[in-house]
Amino acid sequence: MAKYKVIAFDADDTLWVNEPYFREAEDEFAKLLSIYETENKVQQELYKVIIGNIPLYGYGVKSCILSMIQCATELSNNQLPANITQQILEIGKNMLTKPIELLPGVEEVLKTLSKTYTLIVLTKGDLLDQEKKLDRSGLLNYFHHVEVMSEKNPEGYQRILKHLDIAPKDFLMIGNSLKSDILPVLQIGAEAIHIPFHSIWQFETVAKNKLENQQYKTLSSVKNLLEIL
Amino acid sequence: MAKYKVIAFDADDTLWVNEPYFREAEDEFAKLLSIYETENKVQQELYKVIIGNIPLYGYGVKSCILSMIQCATELSNNQLPANITQQILEIGKNMLTKPIELLPGVEEVLKTLSKTYTLIVLTKGDLLDQEKKLDRSGLLNYFHHVEVMSEKNPEGYQRILKHLDIAPKDFLMIGNSLKSDILPVLQIGAEAIHIPFHSIWQFETVAKNKLENQQYKTLSSVKNLLEIL
Repeated sequence: MAKYKVIAFDADDTLWVNEPYFREAEDEFAKLLSIYETENKVQQELYKVIIGNIPLYGYGVKSCILSMIQCATELSNNQLPANITQQILEIGKNMLTKPIELLPGVEEVLKTLSKTYTLIVLTKGDLLDQEKKLDRSGLLNYFHHVEVMSEKNPEGYQRILKHLDIAPKDFLMIGNSLKSDILPVLQIGAEAIHIPFHSIWQFETVAKNKLENQQYKTLSSVKNLLEIL
Repeated sequence: MAKYKVIAFDADDTLWVNEPYFREAEDEFAKLLSIYETENKVQQELYKVIIGNIPLYGYGVKSCILSMIQCATELSNNQLPANITQQILEIGKNMLTKPIELLPGVEEVLKTLSKTYTLIVLTKGDLLDQEKKLDRSGLLNYFHHVEVMSEKNPEGYQRILKHLDIAPKDFLMIGNSLKSDILPVLQIGAEAIHIPFHSIWQFETVAKNKLENQQYKTLSSVKNLLEIL
């Protein structure tokens, strides 16, 4: 008998490459703004603006671009040339149309697991962008349900379990972010598997002491899922 | 016995005031850009940019602001002063923090209907913004489920009915947009009630011939729902 009723996958950096594209975009931004500040300082200021805007803008590319434009006008002391603004908008449009690069083994694993389990996607970020990425990924048919969450906190996961009408013990979450995919899931009494990705956004990192006494498995690749599920 | 299993409400301009705030924002934008063009021309160009960006950006405030910035850089021939960019960002932040103004009778109607029916919200727009508006509205407890849709088309409604596990005949949609709330719902064989709002976005209007032979009720106020449900 299947151990879980529903297995949920995070999307960005769990199913496909994402974070490196944000890093590239930030590097490009820092180069554009290096007429005002060192690239290092630009990156630091951008991070502050993005984090400060999360309560208002949330996650995703559009939020990132709006924060880049704000950061750029501030760093330029309101002298920002319009052609830089225009180039920042282009950075965003490029990010929104990037081809999807699946992580190794993802399709094979989903194909196998979908025969035994109900699979869903739980992702953060922008609604339309995530839907379109899933569409471009070719993975849509393996999933029973896709939910874009405004924030991955215990309340959000609880709402989804209620909505799926399942108990925490029947739910397994798989993702690359300890902060978003693992800790809040353990907190509501469900299980989680951590599959780290080589690049992680500073905001998603977790202090070591928060991981003490937490029970979750760590795998080096999504491919290893088939050995334990 | 209740005639429907689930009654879905649109949110913007059905439960609360929304469109006038977009009109105000566009007027403010047109004034800012009137150094380059007549306000009328600015509005026309902005509309084109917003519609052109829908496939990429979708709906909602953040998309609107990104399109405003793009339109402004274009109208200025890339000469846009940074302080105007900064003022456009402010227009967006103001929209995202506006208090919620419920339409007359909404709370009373939801209170009564929620005793007999399962009520849900189906809205277009930005995920976080719509969740926050619903939270500020104080109406959240009347709803069993809230779904932000990237597009309100027949496929989207079908997906939701499948997800709710109900037949089209058990579903009623209530909203102010013929294009988004009424026609696609009738197309999948469910019922719909149109409650027009005094202000509607040009993009949501429908040609008269598309309404021929369509069966739906029109009410002048949400208050009248209690007479027929």
